[in-house]
Amino acid sequence: MEAQHYSHEDILGLDQRFRNAFINCLSGFKSATLVGTQSADGLTNLAIISSIVHIGANPPMQGFIHRPTSVEKHTFMNIEETGSFTLNHVSKAFFPQAHQTSARYDREVSEFEATGLTPWYGAVSAPYVEESLIKMGFSLQDIIPIPINGTWLIVGKLEEVFVPSTAIASDGWVDLTASGTLAVNGLDGYGEVTSLGRLAYAKPDVPPTFV
Amino acid sequence: MEAQHYSHEDILGLDQRFRNAFINCLSGFKSATLVGTQSADGLTNLAIISSIVHIGANPPMQGFIHRPTSVEKHTFMNIEETGSFTLNHVSKAFFPQAHQTSARYDREVSEFEATGLTPWYGAVSAPYVEESLIKMGFSLQDIIPIPINGTWLIVGKLEEVFVPSTAIASDGWVDLTASGTLAVNGLDGYGEVTSLGRLAYAKPDVPPTFV
Repeated sequence: MEAQHYSHEDILGLDQRFRNAFINCLSGFKSATLVGTQSADGLTNLAIISSIVHIGANPPMQGFIHRPTSVEKHTFMNIEETGSFTLNHVSKAFFPQAHQTSARYDREVSEFEATGLTPWYGAVSAPYVEESLIKMGFSLQDIIPIPINGTWLIVGKLEEVFVPSTAIASDGWVDLTASGTLAVNGLDGYGEVTSLGRLAYAKPDVPPTFV
Repeated sequence: MEAQHYSHEDILGLDQRFRNAFINCLSGFKSATLVGTQSADGLTNLAIISSIVHIGANPPMQGFIHRPTSVEKHTFMNIEETGSFTLNHVSKAFFPQAHQTSARYDREVSEFEATGLTPWYGAVSAPYVEESLIKMGFSLQDIIPIPINGTWLIVGKLEEVFVPSTAIASDGWVDLTASGTLAVNGLDGYGEVTSLGRLAYAKPDVPPTFV
């Protein structure tokens, strides 16, 4: 397959929209996730993000990259105000509504109401998305600056999680096709995943084998 | 669908292997990527990772989470020594070999040789994976500590990228199904993605529409 080559300078010279679409695809398939928050006075907010990263299992921690806060960012403000957020997997049943949360609504407008998704409450103060089959509640652990471009790594401690019972394998692995979780391609492409199988824990001198 | 609930304390009480498999699935589908490096004296290394995050498009930057370095970590040492690494998308044609790079080989053993994948060189000093259809070369920008558990966010400046010409749409979006890129479910589940379509840039008062 013929490859197109772009140098750093080529990329800097691209049209801004082209570059933004292009670079956002290069990190590969990502997780379609909604972050739920609310302000100190109870205004709910919902935003789609794809930059979730596993930080650790013990204690259980996850993080996500947040854009620069040079302009008003409701999710960031709410997390600072309340120390709480939720992450909710996006599934096939409601991904257009999830995508719609990326529109620039005023702070007084709840993306729950604007998109028809349903707020639901558990043990953390931030709202969950009722329609989501995997829901995680976090307390804020850390906000780490990334100096090069003013972005932030927001790290949360997992306070509770809801997972469909039938999706959990006997060894703890969760079948994300059973929860209908989607993968994201760039900023706006959504896809469903078909399993090619699981591979056994790799050891030197043992060839790769399926579980 | 019946949901299973786990509190933070429930998770801390889980068997370590169960917890590790479980928590690694909760961040959703992730990108199957090989990080290529070499030591100052030219020993090549290849490691599969799934914690890639988009940091920014202008300048183009990507990052990934690296485990604690309390035990010897060849990728980390090589990046510190040379300031260079590559990220290479894993496709269906060679994912078992890519997974095999997670075995604990000694530093003298190259995972390229051990798994049969082919080193290939471009403008950066670190080796690419020839079999990979999307190859990115980085110079090290930053190594940011994540204090809570000793992990690191490694940030790279994109120096060059190779992408199949036919996968690039006219607006810059890259079709990752055309490059055969896989999604990862937890630590060992691999899947291929079928597109459900792209959604238009979202605006308040305009319902979500497919492109």
